[in-house]
Amino acid sequence: MPRPANPETRLRLLEKGGDLVSSRGFNATGVQEITAAAGVPKGSFYNYFDSKEAFAVEVLSEYWDSVVELYGPILTDSRKSPLSRITRYFAGLADFHEQRQYAFGCLIGNMALEVTTSSEEVRARLAVIYREWSTALTDCLREAQARKELASGRDAKQLAVALIDAFEGAVMRAKVERTKAPFDTFERWVLPALLG
Amino acid sequence: MPRPANPETRLRLLEKGGDLVSSRGFNATGVQEITAAAGVPKGSFYNYFDSKEAFAVEVLSEYWDSVVELYGPILTDSRKSPLSRITRYFAGLADFHEQRQYAFGCLIGNMALEVTTSSEEVRARLAVIYREWSTALTDCLREAQARKELASGRDAKQLAVALIDAFEGAVMRAKVERTKAPFDTFERWVLPALLG
Repeated sequence: MPRPANPETRLRLLEKGGDLVSSRGFNATGVQEITAAAGVPKGSFYNYFDSKEAFAVEVLSEYWDSVVELYGPILTDSRKSPLSRITRYFAGLADFHEQRQYAFGCLIGNMALEVTTSSEEVRARLAVIYREWSTALTDCLREAQARKELASGRDAKQLAVALIDAFEGAVMRAKVERTKAPFDTFERWVLPALLG
Repeated sequence: MPRPANPETRLRLLEKGGDLVSSRGFNATGVQEITAAAGVPKGSFYNYFDSKEAFAVEVLSEYWDSVVELYGPILTDSRKSPLSRITRYFAGLADFHEQRQYAFGCLIGNMALEVTTSSEEVRARLAVIYREWSTALTDCLREAQARKELASGRDAKQLAVALIDAFEGAVMRAKVERTKAPFDTFERWVLPALLG
């Protein structure tokens, strides 16, 4: 693969293509549609990405990086108590989905269900993202334990993945019901039950 | 649409096509592949289904009917206590996914993430399935309240959807990690926290 001549083109492919993949699904989105949305010739796609699967891995990475950049700081904001950070963190993610009218869903979940069986490289990238996500939450939960906000006997890592799974399930249902109700359920019922 | 001449062919299309849709995704599966898997000519697909979306709705209905038939009786088995039925119910669903090596995931979740934005008829069918699923669980939780197994102040309906969301998120993660771990987390951490 020749070294990309234009980093801006690459970014535009990832952004415009990522929007298409988010709204329509990965398999329903062709390379031609991605390049058309980015305003570049179809052939140039392969100057930037070895394959559509390699593109999917990059789109996922961009998505995850932006989630980390936008919402990650909430989890490490030492001015707030650890458990209140977790509540604010998920409220922030819920707002993110509300702004997109629930139609896109979470790209991590979308890819997990649509692409893992056909692409080992996408599956491997998703497994890393899940680990990074659970580690960030685990760290915050351990801080809550150190500050006696959360019982020390609780398994912080198990709680972290339970929160992620419950939240991703809520994103999924919001996509079907097109309402905020699943996030309200998560905030009012799941969070207090798991963190109480 | 002419009336289907052969109900067995229709069922075979739903079964074989449903397997393809479950493993590869809806958009990645063409009508030709569905008819080839069922061993019928491509043109005959439209004798049975008005469109690929109408087929998706039928596949979803078949999937949901089989879940109800296989696991529904666990929830209404009056010989067992209501909360133990709920535990057994989700353990049964987890076994179902384990048998399929986690690769297929839950067709309800797969369709929710892949097809809701492009097909209103699939979205509407999924919304009905979610309602039926939560009603079955709500009824069992209310029975638990009547038998003083669960505090009467808990909102059975909210608990029911919280359980569904958390379970669907576990199915999603199992598809990425290809292990039973997400179901163990659900059983050991989420269920006791929500039902405790």
